[in-house]
Amino acid sequence: MVRPRQNASTPSTHVAVVGAGAWGTVIARLLANQPGLSVRLWARRPEAAEAMTRLRENAPYVPGLKLPESLHVTSDLAEAVRGAEAIFVAVPSRGLREVMARLEPLGVAPALVSCAKGLELATFKRFSEVITEYLPEAPVAALSGPNLALEIARGLPASATVASLTPELALRVQGWLNQPTFRVYTSGDLIGVEVGGALKNVVALAAGMSDGLGLGDNAKASLITRGLAEIVRLGVQLGGEEKTFYGLSGLGDLVATCSSRSSRNHLAGERLARGETLEDLEASRLTAEGIPTVRAVVAYARSVRLELPIACAVYDVIYEGKAPQQVLAELMSRGAKPEH
Amino acid sequence: MVRPRQNASTPSTHVAVVGAGAWGTVIARLLANQPGLSVRLWARRPEAAEAMTRLRENAPYVPGLKLPESLHVTSDLAEAVRGAEAIFVAVPSRGLREVMARLEPLGVAPALVSCAKGLELATFKRFSEVITEYLPEAPVAALSGPNLALEIARGLPASATVASLTPELALRVQGWLNQPTFRVYTSGDLIGVEVGGALKNVVALAAGMSDGLGLGDNAKASLITRGLAEIVRLGVQLGGEEKTFYGLSGLGDLVATCSSRSSRNHLAGERLARGETLEDLEASRLTAEGIPTVRAVVAYARSVRLELPIACAVYDVIYEGKAPQQVLAELMSRGAKPEH
Repeated sequence: MVRPRQNASTPSTHVAVVGAGAWGTVIARLLANQPGLSVRLWARRPEAAEAMTRLRENAPYVPGLKLPESLHVTSDLAEAVRGAEAIFVAVPSRGLREVMARLEPLGVAPALVSCAKGLELATFKRFSEVITEYLPEAPVAALSGPNLALEIARGLPASATVASLTPELALRVQGWLNQPTFRVYTSGDLIGVEVGGALKNVVALAAGMSDGLGLGDNAKASLITRGLAEIVRLGVQLGGEEKTFYGLSGLGDLVATCSSRSSRNHLAGERLARGETLEDLEASRLTAEGIPTVRAVVAYARSVRLELPIACAVYDVIYEGKAPQQVLAELMSRGAKPEH
Repeated sequence: MVRPRQNASTPSTHVAVVGAGAWGTVIARLLANQPGLSVRLWARRPEAAEAMTRLRENAPYVPGLKLPESLHVTSDLAEAVRGAEAIFVAVPSRGLREVMARLEPLGVAPALVSCAKGLELATFKRFSEVITEYLPEAPVAALSGPNLALEIARGLPASATVASLTPELALRVQGWLNQPTFRVYTSGDLIGVEVGGALKNVVALAAGMSDGLGLGDNAKASLITRGLAEIVRLGVQLGGEEKTFYGLSGLGDLVATCSSRSSRNHLAGERLARGETLEDLEASRLTAEGIPTVRAVVAYARSVRLELPIACAVYDVIYEGKAPQQVLAELMSRGAKPEH
């Protein structure tokens, strides 16, 4: 990666990244580029932390990305977050409450930055809401955008949005992460940024099914377009601002995820189209956030009588055993009518 | 292609398609699927019309697409349009005025459907406006959407929007073209549909450059997102409705064109990124509508002081000889700021 220009951080600032999957590791690496920022990365498994410390690489998740000596990796959560001005939370939804429950008694309440994308199945809560349940005093932000981790690890350019109801926190996160190949924009629409990031995974499952069936770029572009309309409809209902969904954290993330062969949600959709079931995906340890998200979304949409044909189609394939070719054909042949 | 269900056309209806490139041929083929619709396709060159009639295939443009016996191909323009209830105009911008000048004295003024995407360089007119100059009495519509012709020729599903200020014409065109694998939606926003179709070619040039430089899916998704914001800004200024640009003829077409290896605009961008010049593209007879369109757009934007960074970057590469890597790096490193 390119060495960034000098930035406004003071030399003593310390931040922590909790979660050493691909995205957590890449975020830690981006933060470590910032002069004057001291970064600690927490890995759940001691062996993983030890291997990263010894090899200066997170080989299972981000092979080839060099971790600088200044990046401290540990499996001791208390050590990772001690004195941190902010904690970047980069664990998947299924691990979020466990990590928050361990953070709560540590008596630290710095700013928190939610870096994962999804909605909690049981409660339909956004991840920042779950975080706030445990640390209600801490200001919270969400980071989202077209950010395929492995591309960023290769030093390719990307951009993202950081949203917070505390404008000063959004600006601080921007200052820490912004660098020539990673441009960060601020937003005040925390709900819109989080909801867009969660819902795009559902559309990515549909796009993956379309690609798995070989339906081509016209069909996928139609799915993305009508999928974004569903995201807007649901997202505005949940309190997001419409314009947010047309930005980097909505449309941008949606397009990147639906285009990429490295997206787990897209891959899960492709494999469903080839006849695999939810059990097959689980057996091969392919976790895609869209799978629990679509279940939460469809339950909510039914309760408020919101029409979300693409989300329902994805749900029917995953949870009702319908054939992907059948639900996609039904989607494409909905009645001819005015577009809006 | 699948045989369509019976539709509302009367048995004697006759329509013409003017222009036998890939898109004109595919439109004629879609129309010929409609029971009771008699279709004539006009090809400029007599040899081309003769070959299509004999071989029942437009081998140079759409190899493998079978043209049914009921589809009459001719190079006699008067014969093609005689008695037609509508003329689908599918010629590129550089041939539009010549064809319209030949249609004008034929004394026919049925409905016209503009099927090409672009803006006239010298006048900044939409194609429906050019058509109306010659046949001011005729109602006019525009057809647009994520419609890579070669995919539709293979029978893959697609959807499109037909827009007209004459709602009854939009409904008629929808009735003629709609079939299980080609879904047509109507719109009253003629300006928005035409402007979106023209401007997406400019963003597709930028996306092609990004792909040609190997910048990845994150960068391309950012370009598409910020490119759509430019399309909205310019399109609303020109009289289009914002929501149209988020639909099939705007976002849908943009995503399909930026994804596809079969898009000429995307290909032109890729070749520019590899160091070819405008002269090289012209020498190899690669015509991409975005090339004249971006010139018209940038001249207009400067005259009204509208900020369009992506269009200006594309212009600088094509007409000012700037290096694609330089202009894309400048685009990605614009000042950190709020997203909206």
